[in-house]
Amino acid sequence: MRGTVLYGPRDIRFEERPDPVIEQPTDAILRLAVTCVCGSDLWPYRGNPPVTEPTPMGHEYCGVVEEVGRDVKTIKLGQFVVGSFATSDNTCVICRHGYQSGCVNREFMLRAQAPLLRVPNADGTLVPTPDKPSDDLLPSLLAASDVLGTGWFAADAANVQPGGTVVVVGDGAVGLLGVLSAKQMRAERIIAMSRHDKRQQLAREFGATDIVSERGDEGMARIKGMTDGIGADSVLECVGTEESMKQAVGSARRGGYVSFVGVPHGVELDGQEMFFSQVHLHGGPAPVRHFLPKLIDLIFERKIDPGKVFDLMLPLEDVAQGYRAMDERRAIKTLLRP
Amino acid sequence: MRGTVLYGPRDIRFEERPDPVIEQPTDAILRLAVTCVCGSDLWPYRGNPPVTEPTPMGHEYCGVVEEVGRDVKTIKLGQFVVGSFATSDNTCVICRHGYQSGCVNREFMLRAQAPLLRVPNADGTLVPTPDKPSDDLLPSLLAASDVLGTGWFAADAANVQPGGTVVVVGDGAVGLLGVLSAKQMRAERIIAMSRHDKRQQLAREFGATDIVSERGDEGMARIKGMTDGIGADSVLECVGTEESMKQAVGSARRGGYVSFVGVPHGVELDGQEMFFSQVHLHGGPAPVRHFLPKLIDLIFERKIDPGKVFDLMLPLEDVAQGYRAMDERRAIKTLLRP
Repeated sequence: MRGTVLYGPRDIRFEERPDPVIEQPTDAILRLAVTCVCGSDLWPYRGNPPVTEPTPMGHEYCGVVEEVGRDVKTIKLGQFVVGSFATSDNTCVICRHGYQSGCVNREFMLRAQAPLLRVPNADGTLVPTPDKPSDDLLPSLLAASDVLGTGWFAADAANVQPGGTVVVVGDGAVGLLGVLSAKQMRAERIIAMSRHDKRQQLAREFGATDIVSERGDEGMARIKGMTDGIGADSVLECVGTEESMKQAVGSARRGGYVSFVGVPHGVELDGQEMFFSQVHLHGGPAPVRHFLPKLIDLIFERKIDPGKVFDLMLPLEDVAQGYRAMDERRAIKTLLRP
Repeated sequence: MRGTVLYGPRDIRFEERPDPVIEQPTDAILRLAVTCVCGSDLWPYRGNPPVTEPTPMGHEYCGVVEEVGRDVKTIKLGQFVVGSFATSDNTCVICRHGYQSGCVNREFMLRAQAPLLRVPNADGTLVPTPDKPSDDLLPSLLAASDVLGTGWFAADAANVQPGGTVVVVGDGAVGLLGVLSAKQMRAERIIAMSRHDKRQQLAREFGATDIVSERGDEGMARIKGMTDGIGADSVLECVGTEESMKQAVGSARRGGYVSFVGVPHGVELDGQEMFFSQVHLHGGPAPVRHFLPKLIDLIFERKIDPGKVFDLMLPLEDVAQGYRAMDERRAIKTLLRP
């Protein structure tokens, strides 16, 4: 088969790779229906940090089970499944607490920007859909694999409550789906911080009640002004920079909740600032597996349409174009068809 | 009257001060039954940061209401009351969320190492006891004013659950009362990190099931070894240094809870470390007012005896000795009788 490999800054190649094979008896091999480029892929794509060797890319996926190892019990050949970017046995004590992305047997997926994918710990990682999905559901199911699950976790970790006031920092796919998730959790007011017309519009479609385009100190002042000087109950930090983290903490009320779900790059938190902010801080790699059954149901019932974040659809072989469009912020998120 | 004033590093004086008077119509004046020295007083006492002018000290107090301003409605002359180190109106939106220490009208108390004390926002800050307390209850009621309330918040903020595994970092009065609080919340296993015989013994009296005397990497390795390599559900950081904070985060399981209640000094948290630890982090000045009614009840019902943390009792005029004994770790906590 051919798959996607990052060789260095902005050097993405689609090239001949070995077909994956069952390596452990708990593995499954999937034939992917769709795959995509993640905002987090842009960090190594931009050389921060640079890859040290040619690195197969991709960690978002859904598709049909083509082969299973002899110890796979619940996942069956021919099922349509969605999995998370982090594998899990779904039985260890960490998994049982709902943190499958911290499973003691966790592996972070790679190699999903390809037609075929080996998934370790298939029974604990993959969730079958109720039926074979129609084509129009594929983008949403693919979103559930990471960006929707991560946006949902951001809202959950920020303790979004019915009637609450929510701020979302970041208008990438995760931030936009954080808006959608906060809406599902019946927040009353959802303030999206965005300075990009098309993304503002999608934020409104997903449920944002207000848009704030200012950033940094000005952005925080706007949020305080909109909340009687108090700050928001819940703030979702969906970027991963020091500026966005400061903006998030500074937008929350004392005793409020800040989640952070973008891998932090160069972020240092000052202990005393955190202390006097009195916020709850929680983040990390999202336990997407924990939320997948619910998210798949919402998608199949057509109650949510997270697939709208894909505003560029390309054949997989044009993956390099997909990275470029996201790097230049011409596309929110690129879907790739093998 | 005479009161306590810090002039510079290790320069505590007990000297003539003006009697406090009602300044705002919502103020009350208390005649203190007992007061004490706080671990947090040791930071400026040691010159970190140094005081810039002579500074009246003390923020823990209980006693009898001697005078009230004309707008004080619920607090009555002659009542025995306990208050928090942070004043609160107990009506603003922050207070209603249970974060009275973040009240929009908050003031941090000073001047309590004295016989008389002015308390702003008396109705929202002070909690009367059910009856006039007998003398043997005074140390425990005084503890409720800060160290017990703070230890309780530490356990609450670290989500201590019945049956859970708890680690307490720090064997000062707050850490020891964090142990007591975790016990009240029915944790199954409470591991106190302490290398000091007398404090280990008190930790055991308060409910610690295990003692770990190692620190840093060795301490974390011990905790991991005691928890099947997983880490603790709840970790209470009751020191405020970078080393203790790292130890706390490194002792929690993925998806676990870390609270921090000692004012951080020189603590920087690495964003990526926090991210991959997947812990919930919450701390700040404890909302003692929120817990006071419950804590006073537990003390009056003689279900807890937090006053045991006072292992040195002195006349108030010997306050400088009290600071010295705590600075040199000869005393856990010094009670002062006006």
